[in-house]
Amino acid sequence: MHALGVDIGGTKIAAGVVDENGTILAQVRRPTDPTDAPSIDRAIAAAYHELAAEHEIGAIGLAAAGFCSPDRRSVAFGPNIGAWRDYPLAERVAELTDTSIPVVVENDANAAGWAEFRYGVGAGTDDFLMLTVGTGLGGAAVVGGALVRGAYGVATEVGHMRVVPDGRLCGCGHFGCWEQYASGSALVRTARAALVAHPDRAARLRELAEGGELVGPHVTTAAQEGDPLAIELFAALGRWLGEGAATVAAFMDPSVIAIGGGVGDAGDLLLRPTQEAFERVLPARTHRSRLATIAIATLGNDAGMVGAADLARH
Amino acid sequence: MHALGVDIGGTKIAAGVVDENGTILAQVRRPTDPTDAPSIDRAIAAAYHELAAEHEIGAIGLAAAGFCSPDRRSVAFGPNIGAWRDYPLAERVAELTDTSIPVVVENDANAAGWAEFRYGVGAGTDDFLMLTVGTGLGGAAVVGGALVRGAYGVATEVGHMRVVPDGRLCGCGHFGCWEQYASGSALVRTARAALVAHPDRAARLRELAEGGELVGPHVTTAAQEGDPLAIELFAALGRWLGEGAATVAAFMDPSVIAIGGGVGDAGDLLLRPTQEAFERVLPARTHRSRLATIAIATLGNDAGMVGAADLARH
Amino acid sequence: MHALGVDIGGTKIAAGVVDENGTILAQVRRPTDPTDAPSIDRAIAAAYHELAAEHEIGAIGLAAAGFCSPDRRSVAFGPNIGAWRDYPLAERVAELTDTSIPVVVENDANAAGWAEFRYGVGAGTDDFLMLTVGTGLGGAAVVGGALVRGAYGVATEVGHMRVVPDGRLCGCGHFGCWEQYASGSALVRTARAALVAHPDRAARLRELAEGGELVGPHVTTAAQEGDPLAIELFAALGRWLGEGAATVAAFMDPSVIAIGGGVGDAGDLLLRPTQEAFERVLPARTHRSRLATIAIATLGNDAGMVGAADLARH
Amino acid sequence: MHALGVDIGGTKIAAGVVDENGTILAQVRRPTDPTDAPSIDRAIAAAYHELAAEHEIGAIGLAAAGFCSPDRRSVAFGPNIGAWRDYPLAERVAELTDTSIPVVVENDANAAGWAEFRYGVGAGTDDFLMLTVGTGLGGAAVVGGALVRGAYGVATEVGHMRVVPDGRLCGCGHFGCWEQYASGSALVRTARAALVAHPDRAARLRELAEGGELVGPHVTTAAQEGDPLAIELFAALGRWLGEGAATVAAFMDPSVIAIGGGVGDAGDLLLRPTQEAFERVLPARTHRSRLATIAIATLGNDAGMVGAADLARH
Repeated sequence: MHALGVDIGGTKIAAGVVDENGTILAQVRRPTDPTDAPSIDRAIAAAYHELAAEHEIGAIGLAAAGFCSPDRRSVAFGPNIGAWRDYPLAERVAELTDTSIPVVVENDANAAGWAEFRYGVGAGTDDFLMLTVGTGLGGAAVVGGALVRGAYGVATEVGHMRVVPDGRLCGCGHFGCWEQYASGSALVRTARAALVAHPDRAARLRELAEGGELVGPHVTTAAQEGDPLAIELFAALGRWLGEGAATVAAFMDPSVIAIGGGVGDAGDLLLRPTQEAFERVLPARTHRSRLATIAIATLGNDAGMVGAADLARH
Repeated sequence: MHALGVDIGGTKIAAGVVDENGTILAQVRRPTDPTDAPSIDRAIAAAYHELAAEHEIGAIGLAAAGFCSPDRRSVAFGPNIGAWRDYPLAERVAELTDTSIPVVVENDANAAGWAEFRYGVGAGTDDFLMLTVGTGLGGAAVVGGALVRGAYGVATEVGHMRVVPDGRLCGCGHFGCWEQYASGSALVRTARAALVAHPDRAARLRELAEGGELVGPHVTTAAQEGDPLAIELFAALGRWLGEGAATVAAFMDPSVIAIGGGVGDAGDLLLRPTQEAFERVLPARTHRSRLATIAIATLGNDAGMVGAADLARH
Repeated sequence: MHALGVDIGGTKIAAGVVDENGTILAQVRRPTDPTDAPSIDRAIAAAYHELAAEHEIGAIGLAAAGFCSPDRRSVAFGPNIGAWRDYPLAERVAELTDTSIPVVVENDANAAGWAEFRYGVGAGTDDFLMLTVGTGLGGAAVVGGALVRGAYGVATEVGHMRVVPDGRLCGCGHFGCWEQYASGSALVRTARAALVAHPDRAARLRELAEGGELVGPHVTTAAQEGDPLAIELFAALGRWLGEGAATVAAFMDPSVIAIGGGVGDAGDLLLRPTQEAFERVLPARTHRSRLATIAIATLGNDAGMVGAADLARH
Repeated sequence: MHALGVDIGGTKIAAGVVDENGTILAQVRRPTDPTDAPSIDRAIAAAYHELAAEHEIGAIGLAAAGFCSPDRRSVAFGPNIGAWRDYPLAERVAELTDTSIPVVVENDANAAGWAEFRYGVGAGTDDFLMLTVGTGLGGAAVVGGALVRGAYGVATEVGHMRVVPDGRLCGCGHFGCWEQYASGSALVRTARAALVAHPDRAARLRELAEGGELVGPHVTTAAQEGDPLAIELFAALGRWLGEGAATVAAFMDPSVIAIGGGVGDAGDLLLRPTQEAFERVLPARTHRSRLATIAIATLGNDAGMVGAADLARH
């Protein structure tokens, strides 16, 4: 069965018809206004009508940035869209599309993780962890072949698992959250700290920032050039990522862990220290027939659309 | 369908016929020799034959202390029984019982957690966490109605999730494992440390130990009498239990958390600080429609037998 | 012998004639321009001339915010005054005052701590620790009757002793510095975090902030009113202060610890949890004939002037 | 003036005549019985009489393992000698030697540190830190040219400064003490943990232990052979040593830090990671005219005798 997957961004939606192999047969994009929630509903319906004219669509999956209700019908809280407070998104879309096919709402990180599980580096396993290292640290998990959604739709908030008691302050109001150690923001914050504490060692970073604010790509560039401090910063990020992943693995025992998100683009600079740290602290290592594979995610920006479509079929 | 649940201990087995309501209709116990693995197989078969004479048994579930293979057929590693290294327990029992009914092997903590999920404080939810606070810290989890077993049969090793980087040394060879902070052993170790660091405040504990070694029940007794230090020791244990549970909840978002095991018998001395700590550090608390319920487990020693029987039916 | 003590602030100086009992016999204030270092030198000289007309002055002590050279002649680095980079302050003042009496430069926190040691809560001891809990966490120490200045004039940087590995980010570019846990800024930051993580418990704090930014006095007010969250915030600050003080005491074994600075004004709200934490974690407690006294500092704003004068005499 | 320095061990004393250059002119050893404190007093007196026959002795310094009274007359608590509880050692020795020359008691670590300060790697500085990395972690400090003794004779208990909140359990009854991370015992404990957690990487260590218990020299041997795990274990020890030293340096700002004790024999294996860590986390590094020198102590086993003699002269 073909399904429509819709990735709902801040100012546009991307909708695609996805077949059972995860292939996008056709797709459209439409602008939306984040201050006008119904504009999003209408854009989705219009995309549906346009694509349904050419393709038979058996289900609609909507990937939304926010917490979704456990019944997959509403957005309980969407931080970027003011009206998304217990917003009945599936119902609205069903009304506007005037179909009786299933419409489901899924968290966007879950949708992307599910796509990676079905068609990316997670294909072939039943126990899969996706860690998305972007500005923050997000994730998704599949346990025994089923997506982990949680009792209240607030599961796999991996970025807020505590890794250091009384550690770094997080925007969530708690201290020591994993994303304060393993995210793009953490990388930049640590790099800026090094400018202060180690002006000598940070010469190349300062140079790249050219008197402006140091940002993530400066660190990546310096590391790729071989700057020792920048390489250390990625190594530290990887260490936290791997050590945290080992704690998650103690709980869910995955066989594949995918690293996605913009920081994941650093490739081996990040992947190798992540793997080393994971292996170093994974409990009961000798009792697993093999170590979980840690690999860079492969599906990129289409993952949300593909995953939402596939979840709508299930 | 009735199923046979077998709880395999170090020196005996307990086998019971369990109906679909979790009621034990009949049970037998038989001694076993931990240095003679076949003696265990034979004891199980004998128990089966005895009980099958009176009851129709549709499946056999074996609760084993150790890591079990993902196909639920073997014990990959049983620390207490020397021969249990990739031991084909299900096959041996099937041969000796000479039946074609399903025989499955499950980790004993998983079996007990499953029983609590089906018939105890977890009944009615789909996302459930069991924390067993005994000598160590064990657990089991149900996610979306399914038991978490892991890709290699080594899931919910909650006691070895790291809660303090570079923290207390664990017998597993790692540092900072949760069970070094939230277990009966941790309670006793902390109490003994207080004897050294705070001889004045530890007067009642020393008195109870009567010149011998301080053990857990001394701490419980003192706390129940109102001894401030002993109450603090339980409060600290509860704090670690609740804070760690919040990290697990960030991942799996359960609606019920059961506290089992011998230390759980301390009741409110443990439960209240656990709940307070959980609420204090749970991330995204305001985005959950309600806080997870934390409650003392109710099934006690029969849980392994009942859970193994029920899992064999599924 | 009477000595002149000068407290050099950002935009003014305060100079006083101090006798050997620490009594200020006369004092003057003069405005200065922080962007014009010589204006400071001239203001000091003018104050000297004015006060020397009436009082015999045998030495001049200058309390400067910054790192001072070990020979007590220059300011190696003064963060607030641009020209204070290896600035020969004593020499300039000596030239302008045209006297041959000793002129010495001392770090302002050291001067204040010394005053408290000589004439305040530290009088009568030889081993004294002053902790100044203001925006940051500063301090001074007296060991065996002598002020601790360090080999490079950078001693008693207590606020930057590390108390949590990989802990909260500090402006100094390191992580886990004590002042990120035990200072006015830490109090406010933790209170603001509670507004996010615990909106319900933070109702009174939010009310006091009246839609504006929450600041330290709001927390103090709420705590004094009995608000449970605000009291907890002070308790947490006190706990970190006491635990850190115990680590310092493991090193220097003081008999008196003074708590100064604006946050110290909270009195028992801060003092009691500080004392409890100190006693709880002080090593070798049973081997000290008594616990160090922890008390609120008594000299207030005059301490820098009085201490600088007294240090100039020694 | 020549002074007699006496190093009081568990089962013998070593006494030497030391000149003002720290040279030992003559020495004797005598057996003692730790269960018979007067046997120690008599042995000291006998050694004095023997050496005084040939040398003019102007003072006697006694280096004792234990806490000494601030007046340098008694041993407040000596863990190895049962009768050393407020034991008036100086008085007893003065009586038995029947002289009116000064007799002082000093903590043995302080005596050794003082020797290193006067005649070893600390010569020429006024601010000196000695860290003795043996079974435990001991130390001594000189601040502004004066030995740090503390108000109660319990100073420079560096091994019990807390470096990790809720960290590893220490024999002192507290958690997270520095010596649990930076000592010979810590090295061995971590190595044994690696045998469990990383049996593959620990192959060489297991081989060296030959089925017996792994001890420190095995780790040193393996590291010197180039075994990666053993090198990492020393690197971790060095990291903790350097990071802790940076925290002490934030307080006392030394210009020389000496590493003594048996583990110090590992030389660069330990020294280099110590230096790197110290430099990485030292606060206000750019405000010190240079980094403190970290060097291996040079005086070895004679340090206690030499330092006690020299302290008796002051």
